[in-house]
Amino acid sequence: MEKKLLLITVSIITNLVFTIHILYRNSTTWNPTWTSRAAIEAEDAASVSCSGHGRAYVDGIGVLGGKQPSCECNNCYTGKDCSILLSDCPVNANSGDPLFLEPFWMRQAESSAALVSGWHRMSYIYQDGTYMSEALETVIRKLHSVVGNAVTDNRFVIFGSGSTQLLAAAVHALSLTNSSSSGPARLLASVPYYAMYKEQAEFFDSVHLKFEGDAFAWKNSERNDNTTQVIEVVTSPNNPDGKLKRAVLDGPNVKTIHDYAYYWPYFSPITVPADEDLSLFSLSKTTGHAGSRFGWGLVKDKTVYENMKRYITLSSMGVSRTTQLHVLQLLNVVVRDGGDNIFHFGHETLKKRWETLNKVLSLSTRFSLQKIKPEYCNYFKKVRDFTPSYAWVKCERPGDANCYEIFREAKITGRDGKVFGSEESFVRLSLIRSQDDFDHLIDMLKKLVLHEGVEAHSI
Amino acid sequence: MEKKLLLITVSIITNLVFTIHILYRNSTTWNPTWTSRAAIEAEDAASVSCSGHGRAYVDGIGVLGGKQPSCECNNCYTGKDCSILLSDCPVNANSGDPLFLEPFWMRQAESSAALVSGWHRMSYIYQDGTYMSEALETVIRKLHSVVGNAVTDNRFVIFGSGSTQLLAAAVHALSLTNSSSSGPARLLASVPYYAMYKEQAEFFDSVHLKFEGDAFAWKNSERNDNTTQVIEVVTSPNNPDGKLKRAVLDGPNVKTIHDYAYYWPYFSPITVPADEDLSLFSLSKTTGHAGSRFGWGLVKDKTVYENMKRYITLSSMGVSRTTQLHVLQLLNVVVRDGGDNIFHFGHETLKKRWETLNKVLSLSTRFSLQKIKPEYCNYFKKVRDFTPSYAWVKCERPGDANCYEIFREAKITGRDGKVFGSEESFVRLSLIRSQDDFDHLIDMLKKLVLHEGVEAHSI
Repeated sequence: MEKKLLLITVSIITNLVFTIHILYRNSTTWNPTWTSRAAIEAEDAASVSCSGHGRAYVDGIGVLGGKQPSCECNNCYTGKDCSILLSDCPVNANSGDPLFLEPFWMRQAESSAALVSGWHRMSYIYQDGTYMSEALETVIRKLHSVVGNAVTDNRFVIFGSGSTQLLAAAVHALSLTNSSSSGPARLLASVPYYAMYKEQAEFFDSVHLKFEGDAFAWKNSERNDNTTQVIEVVTSPNNPDGKLKRAVLDGPNVKTIHDYAYYWPYFSPITVPADEDLSLFSLSKTTGHAGSRFGWGLVKDKTVYENMKRYITLSSMGVSRTTQLHVLQLLNVVVRDGGDNIFHFGHETLKKRWETLNKVLSLSTRFSLQKIKPEYCNYFKKVRDFTPSYAWVKCERPGDANCYEIFREAKITGRDGKVFGSEESFVRLSLIRSQDDFDHLIDMLKKLVLHEGVEAHSI
Repeated sequence: MEKKLLLITVSIITNLVFTIHILYRNSTTWNPTWTSRAAIEAEDAASVSCSGHGRAYVDGIGVLGGKQPSCECNNCYTGKDCSILLSDCPVNANSGDPLFLEPFWMRQAESSAALVSGWHRMSYIYQDGTYMSEALETVIRKLHSVVGNAVTDNRFVIFGSGSTQLLAAAVHALSLTNSSSSGPARLLASVPYYAMYKEQAEFFDSVHLKFEGDAFAWKNSERNDNTTQVIEVVTSPNNPDGKLKRAVLDGPNVKTIHDYAYYWPYFSPITVPADEDLSLFSLSKTTGHAGSRFGWGLVKDKTVYENMKRYITLSSMGVSRTTQLHVLQLLNVVVRDGGDNIFHFGHETLKKRWETLNKVLSLSTRFSLQKIKPEYCNYFKKVRDFTPSYAWVKCERPGDANCYEIFREAKITGRDGKVFGSEESFVRLSLIRSQDDFDHLIDMLKKLVLHEGVEAHSI
């Protein structure tokens, strides 16, 4: 009798617990409605296993047939799940594809995801009539303030489709203020320089601009007459060599564009907040999202800013609002802890890579690396080494005239020193690509350096 | 005794039902993990009530403080929930902001949403080494095939940040093939033309290009010597007047760019698939996403295509991969039913708007509208009226010299005929904006036309 009573009691209590559980669950669990398809697709794609040597994207080619997206493998990996390493595959150390930050964002999956609705900001303009998200501008100013790499007070912020577009806009705006009587403004940069400056100026063939090459050469030439209008691009830290650079030219006829794409704690000590007339930054080297084509500029002069804005308007009517939403989400993740997480992650990654690289090349007399003295970093609050994006390698043997070719024969594709206005004896190797690319690069470098030892012994 | 047994049995069965329910639910219900925060935020923003006169976006300015985003109201509406209509507020009928399609996308919330992961396509390149999504290219070709508005066989597809960027790229590419001996290529378009052609050419001030104005004037001028290189932009349907346009010039020295931004069933009968050397399209007028800054071109000649690609590369290194993902999602929604849903929705909307507009202006002798003869539409399989994006209004009274000013005084902001290379007696009124803007426009037009009647009586 008592047993039965107990059984009834237990059973009824269990029923009550279940009922409460279900009621509570329905009232507190959020049930996605119109977002769930997109969310499921994204989670499905993310769950595709690519052996750590690739990833599947929601917009991979397979998805059009309604299938699960397939793996897109890292260089030299293949197979359905990217598990097969191709032998004898040349390593890509060419472009500055900033995949070294990809693992960070995979770990920040939840905080960095953005859901774009089908009716997201369909208008040409934001509520304030501009092409730029006010929220994003606010976060960018905050970013500079927490990193301490640039003064944003009394600066206009302007967005572009990558710093690429802003560079063209800046050069164009500065060339417009040139009085036509003195001929086109001359665009200069000290060697070695990022090739884009030259390529843009030459391809866009503006009446008001001419690329003139090395700023030092100009300074010492007869044509440096203090009246010809001159625009100098100062890349600091420099691409390709990672050094902090200063303007070579000055005077009333000189205007300067500071390309600060690499002025982040990953790559360089933050020695002082940049406080220039016109500074450019790139999301590619800030968060690693090269594919998002987003950059921004800080501009002091109103007329220059207005002319840059007009350039951006006439070339693309601003930056995609979808992209601005995504970038806002990403930069919010960066700033919410003062950049601690991402800058430590990125800097540690590059520090390790430089240690590995230095170790390998320390065995070599044939190849040398750029040397930069450590400096105090206001961000990390300590003296630290530079950990540049690129190794700027010199082939020291007189017989190794074309350094790019030496590496290419060793199945390492770098970028020829000549591309940077420098000499054939230099080659640039990218160190910010995926871990697979870097590991592969180190393997190939080891072989090359080992071969050097063998050669030396055989002489 | 039996009662108790029954009670036990019922209770235990209920327990079993609950258990099965919970187990089943857990095994079949999808539980979002890392996507849920983004999804919740998007649904939260979408659920903000803005009285049908505005909408809240996830990246609205309020969100930085962690608050729910606030309403962004349509023109002339204000208040926390956009419920207050401002009196005496001028109506904006200026830009071609294609908000008439916003209600369509709100209804397609589920199918059109896209979730962008934090590590989405961080690389500069897609798997195939290009800047363009292969899946998106496939969908674009399919779109033209279902609509029948363009031949894509033997054409290269190129993406740009809006057709704006592609236009600059196309003009530049065609000017490059110009032999330098004959001076810069002349850019022409028949009046009335979209002002962007002129503005770009004049602002970008290429050595190889000069904007020359009206194509008819050039044809009849002495300078039309059949050797000077000429680039004619043919906008069809035309902006501002909506007419199907043909090239004015021909000859071995003439190159043509066809701007087909408006060649969609919303605006015009699809009379024949476009089959030109170089055609441009804009997402803005295809799906209504002006803010996404996406356009594409269909290019026959490989050299021209390569030069356009180089232009896009040097100006922005392609289009944001985030944007390409979103656009893929949108165009997939369009093509999956052959465009039925969106083109019917959009065309019906514009048809109603034109009926309303015609009715109002039929009472007027002071203002006249463009007239276009109906044509057979291969898409809707019937003879149909043109329902252009813009009313191209002529002020017929000799005293009304400046038509734009007449409307501005009546609190209707249109776009001055002079902007299109035409006369002051014309003004363009945009009909593709939000329903609120259109309703407001009609109210103001009624007043203006009513006033005309009063004036007539008072004479």
